[in-house]
Amino acid sequence: MKRLSAGFLPPVALDAASGVPMYDQLSEWFRRAIMDGRLRPGQRVPSTRSLAKELDISRIPVLSAYEQLYAEGYLETFVGAGTCVARAIPGEAFAPAQRTTQPKKSQGAPRRISRRVAALKTAPQTWADNQGAFRIGLPALDHFPSTAWSKLLHRHARNPPIGHMVYGSPMGYLPLREAIAEYLSTVRAVRCDASQVLITTGSQQGLQICAHALLEAKDGVWMEDPGYPGARQALRTAGAEIVPVPVDDEGLNVDAGIRLGKNARAIYISPSHQFPLGVTMSAARRMQLLSWAARTGAWIIEDDYDSEYRFGGRPLASLQGMDADDRVIYVGTFSKVMFPALRVGYIVAPKDLIEAFATVRDAFDTFSSTLYQAALADFITEGQFARHIRRMRALYLERRTALLDAIDQHMDGKLEVIGTHAGMQLTALLARGVDDVALSIKTAKLGVSTRPLSICYAKPPKRGGVILGYSGASVAEIRDGVRKLRSCL
Amino acid sequence: MKRLSAGFLPPVALDAASGVPMYDQLSEWFRRAIMDGRLRPGQRVPSTRSLAKELDISRIPVLSAYEQLYAEGYLETFVGAGTCVARAIPGEAFAPAQRTTQPKKSQGAPRRISRRVAALKTAPQTWADNQGAFRIGLPALDHFPSTAWSKLLHRHARNPPIGHMVYGSPMGYLPLREAIAEYLSTVRAVRCDASQVLITTGSQQGLQICAHALLEAKDGVWMEDPGYPGARQALRTAGAEIVPVPVDDEGLNVDAGIRLGKNARAIYISPSHQFPLGVTMSAARRMQLLSWAARTGAWIIEDDYDSEYRFGGRPLASLQGMDADDRVIYVGTFSKVMFPALRVGYIVAPKDLIEAFATVRDAFDTFSSTLYQAALADFITEGQFARHIRRMRALYLERRTALLDAIDQHMDGKLEVIGTHAGMQLTALLARGVDDVALSIKTAKLGVSTRPLSICYAKPPKRGGVILGYSGASVAEIRDGVRKLRSCL
Repeated sequence: MKRLSAGFLPPVALDAASGVPMYDQLSEWFRRAIMDGRLRPGQRVPSTRSLAKELDISRIPVLSAYEQLYAEGYLETFVGAGTCVARAIPGEAFAPAQRTTQPKKSQGAPRRISRRVAALKTAPQTWADNQGAFRIGLPALDHFPSTAWSKLLHRHARNPPIGHMVYGSPMGYLPLREAIAEYLSTVRAVRCDASQVLITTGSQQGLQICAHALLEAKDGVWMEDPGYPGARQALRTAGAEIVPVPVDDEGLNVDAGIRLGKNARAIYISPSHQFPLGVTMSAARRMQLLSWAARTGAWIIEDDYDSEYRFGGRPLASLQGMDADDRVIYVGTFSKVMFPALRVGYIVAPKDLIEAFATVRDAFDTFSSTLYQAALADFITEGQFARHIRRMRALYLERRTALLDAIDQHMDGKLEVIGTHAGMQLTALLARGVDDVALSIKTAKLGVSTRPLSICYAKPPKRGGVILGYSGASVAEIRDGVRKLRSCL
Repeated sequence: MKRLSAGFLPPVALDAASGVPMYDQLSEWFRRAIMDGRLRPGQRVPSTRSLAKELDISRIPVLSAYEQLYAEGYLETFVGAGTCVARAIPGEAFAPAQRTTQPKKSQGAPRRISRRVAALKTAPQTWADNQGAFRIGLPALDHFPSTAWSKLLHRHARNPPIGHMVYGSPMGYLPLREAIAEYLSTVRAVRCDASQVLITTGSQQGLQICAHALLEAKDGVWMEDPGYPGARQALRTAGAEIVPVPVDDEGLNVDAGIRLGKNARAIYISPSHQFPLGVTMSAARRMQLLSWAARTGAWIIEDDYDSEYRFGGRPLASLQGMDADDRVIYVGTFSKVMFPALRVGYIVAPKDLIEAFATVRDAFDTFSSTLYQAALADFITEGQFARHIRRMRALYLERRTALLDAIDQHMDGKLEVIGTHAGMQLTALLARGVDDVALSIKTAKLGVSTRPLSICYAKPPKRGGVILGYSGASVAEIRDGVRKLRSCL
């Protein structure tokens, strides 16, 4: 049992004026000296008595520091042999090159991250920084009933029952699930009860749960082309292979899907108001899709992201409500009808998938914050939600009209507008050859957010365009935005 | 162009007394009739005028219903040929067998879910239902300063700036990230600045982000054995292969890890207060692990889940703070120091991993709810957080003492208690041969939550045990719990 004799202790630098307790200064000094290699494994250290004397301080802090260092495994003691630096500390742990206070990276070992990250990375989207015209998915936040909402929050936060503070169910808070089931049955003709509703932190998490619960790596999934980039990200996270399927004026081209991806395990689709083209999927296509899914066993992930707002005609029924084979998983969010920073969304799952979905949610992040769920349940059941949607529908109609008028007036036919019958945004196609990404970067510099259409495609399309959100901007901002857009063309 | 002649229309059932608008009843009737096959593709339907007459209702609702059905693609019109059911609707869509109002599943197509779900599924944990003694990870919620906290919430919820309602950064709310960086530097000797802090919805999401950003499917990861089941879930979600590495009284056995998994890409570890054995990893082992990771390029995921509470001696420094090679990712949560339903946690990432982590977080669920982040930032910077931790430390010490005393008094040496120097729970080993799962199921029936130790192991261990949380139960509940536990043995 080799033990180094107690050599000289390197100078101990203590600063009585620093305000840091002597005990802390001492133990920290020892830790550094051991890690730096100035004190070597097995090296004896002075007794507490002699060190206190040497440093001219009381013995108490020295005793405490030694005890702490002993507990942490830096020092060890032997009967009759005093205290020494733990011999088990590897001598090679900290090479002389690293004896600096600044940590240095060893040059040798690679710093590998998963290939998934590269698949998920996107180019910088400077157009997403602006919060006025024409940021997409942005509600009219200055018209949100913040006072009423904060009262509901306060009602639940002031004297929270213990049940609202502990771990909750991965499925979510039951009164909110009940309120959502009733709302969706009534307004969207979704066939469900509360047991099928799983609360998420938004539609993005909803898509992730679907992807992870239903798909293996390399499974093929039809994805509308152009389509919602967030869905692509979710599918890629789970390792799925995306099969881009063209969209025409009846929505997803099911025949093309069958041709391109006949072994697909799932379909991602936004049938009510296709993102980004704004098409409504025809009844014939819907039935064709449902029938194909029932035959092949594919799942349909229906993203009903903004169907609350439809101008002219009542909102279309959901695809889920037409599904006789329980193949459709319905994904929704409150980000657009309430506000994005709420982080509450939902999935409506076929009954035989509920357990799988709850398992994945639990593994992802256990459950959603309870307070917001409780306040939102009240907001819906007390009728404030319906009232808010009605008011916003009128407002967004006015804003849409203002945008269409301004485009008509200022753009000299340079934009072809599509997808205007619903939602919170429309798409304006550009002449062939106009680079929509370059245009969006230009408008962003003027504080105007225009999302390029081409980034929603799997391959660069023949015609680019810009997606213009009108819900979050005032009529004046919309007019100003169109003038600025025009100046960039 | 084949078109069926206008046959008889099946009887239209309308109910004027139902309260549902005539327009809705009519369009719904048509949808069902088309989906059921009672109206066939290409079949002509009566003109609005004749249908209104036939049904003896005003023409207006009939017009609206037809318009809606046209917009949805159920009906189509031809100049000079009237209106018919859209011919594109597939005839085979809904077979006669499915012509019922109750959806029936087709027997043929399989209902496949991902293999991941089976890997994540756990046996029912009835012991998790109880919220008193000895539920683990449960703070003393009746001592939480709810009034002060709800005031902070109200401060931010009443007149929220638009910036708190819109989409936030995937990294989190900057003032909270700054507060956490300062707190961790001071209290846990973590070397970081705010740019390295990523806000999560809790440590579970933190572990998921690490797993998805760092690991490919089939990558090996050392995992403490016994260890934290939630970490296992996160690693499995990303497809990693778990290499169980034994834990002894110095913490993770690094030599064994090198022997069992020399190609591992990452290590999951809880060095401050190992879950569930309560060991503190020795300095020698820490250095050995850091040095091995630096040499091989493995990542270390440090889960510092409850190090705020340490009884006797100051809290040990984090492993991250000793790391000269930026190999350690530090994961923490506010679930245990605030309350679980808050859903706020954090990751401290090496600077060159920040972008990858933010990319994965964005793909997972975009960002964390802003209100809680803003309130928590104030709670920390205004000193209430430190005060709350101090108060809880004293309270948990008292509760721990009560638990140790009660075990001493009532258990006749049937339990061997370990891991008592820190945290919010301790582990009590049972005699060989006692089935800890059966015991936990028994105690759960008496309303007492004892988590079986064996479920934390990769393979059934020689000795089982129960993990007893004492933080969330009063002294009286603790004493009662021990008596009930004893009655089950």
